[in-house]
Amino acid sequence: MSSTPASAGPDELRRLAGDINRMAGLVEAQVAGALEAVARRDVARARELIEKDAAIDAMQAEIERRAVALIATRTLGDGELRRAVSALKLAMNLERCGDLARNIAKRSLVLSANEPVLALVPPVDRMGRLVLARLTEVMDAHIARDVGRAVAVWRRDEEVDDHYEALFRDILALMAQDPGAVTAAAHLLFIAKNLERIGDHATNIAEIAHYEMTGEALAGDRPKPPPDPLELARP
Amino acid sequence: MSSTPASAGPDELRRLAGDINRMAGLVEAQVAGALEAVARRDVARARELIEKDAAIDAMQAEIERRAVALIATRTLGDGELRRAVSALKLAMNLERCGDLARNIAKRSLVLSANEPVLALVPPVDRMGRLVLARLTEVMDAHIARDVGRAVAVWRRDEEVDDHYEALFRDILALMAQDPGAVTAAAHLLFIAKNLERIGDHATNIAEIAHYEMTGEALAGDRPKPPPDPLELARP
Repeated sequence: MSSTPASAGPDELRRLAGDINRMAGLVEAQVAGALEAVARRDVARARELIEKDAAIDAMQAEIERRAVALIATRTLGDGELRRAVSALKLAMNLERCGDLARNIAKRSLVLSANEPVLALVPPVDRMGRLVLARLTEVMDAHIARDVGRAVAVWRRDEEVDDHYEALFRDILALMAQDPGAVTAAAHLLFIAKNLERIGDHATNIAEIAHYEMTGEALAGDRPKPPPDPLELARP
Repeated sequence: MSSTPASAGPDELRRLAGDINRMAGLVEAQVAGALEAVARRDVARARELIEKDAAIDAMQAEIERRAVALIATRTLGDGELRRAVSALKLAMNLERCGDLARNIAKRSLVLSANEPVLALVPPVDRMGRLVLARLTEVMDAHIARDVGRAVAVWRRDEEVDDHYEALFRDILALMAQDPGAVTAAAHLLFIAKNLERIGDHATNIAEIAHYEMTGEALAGDRPKPPPDPLELARP
């Protein structure tokens, strides 16, 4: 590598890491806000969150552009190359979490315009807080470069699935019992599904962070394949 | 660029493009198969499709690895760099389509184990064929390097949304009328949502192909923001 220009890699990697962390902070705030918009039927808050999502999309595009430019300089060592690719992939996963938070905020508008489905909102909120805690924990592990913590998040992905499966059953039971609640219940079902997908992104982020830190893929002994409450839905 | 080693770029880019196209062919077959598994209540077919998804995941990981390695050689010109980044992103979008097809196949198992919801399967099938046609068309446009065709796919994304919105209404109406059909209807609802998401990936692929071919982002005048049938769900 001595024939290549002096590396701008370390500085730009540090800036990229900083921007990923700002983006993660914004995404966590969007998820938390969306949960509050659902729980409090807060229409103004929901509208504000929906508008803010564009800023997250712009951050993702900018991080992607800079990560590709940095990779293309070919001045990076192996570990630095992994960090640059990781920035690219973390930004994509965070952007998807932002989209899912926006979708939850949109659905909260429909819930706020319908009769309340009071009994089901608290378990959705609990599932949301669990998912948000996973996202925060895995980003903390990434900042701390703590492989063990990232793996711990990855191993605990069935907690979210258990919540989702219980909610799926309860929401379907409500639909069968109360035809007037079907619309609100369908949107709650999609909110729960969106939260489960944010949880999956936290799991992806754990895998990306692990690969970045160790150069090894985290796979094979994942607790179970991507969750699906299908067995429970059988009559 | 004369001081860098002789470029292996064009050959490897050609190989990557070939592998992307093989991957796309497999994904299209998985989506088509999943639609048949739903329409024909074909349990054996569904199980086969679910197993095959691992091959698509492996192709994505391999294409990603090679695209990053190619980008890191820094021997690529601007257009070549765009093609390498495009390969990376196309593979990610195709892999997600494969996951969604697997999820549809899994849900078809639940539908096959439940009472048939006959009236709603044909419109889901029609929506699925429309989505599959979009995916095929945009990959054809990419192979032909035909910017106009890619843009045409991108502009027509509301066709899928219209189908999805009509289905969403009809499925909710069925749930309200027939409590015994709630479980099957909920899985059909998620199948429709998965098809809509495959349609969104076709739109993403059109954007990626456009950027690859022109160096310009396709944005701003997209027919409308990401679809959501929320207005229709209001009582």
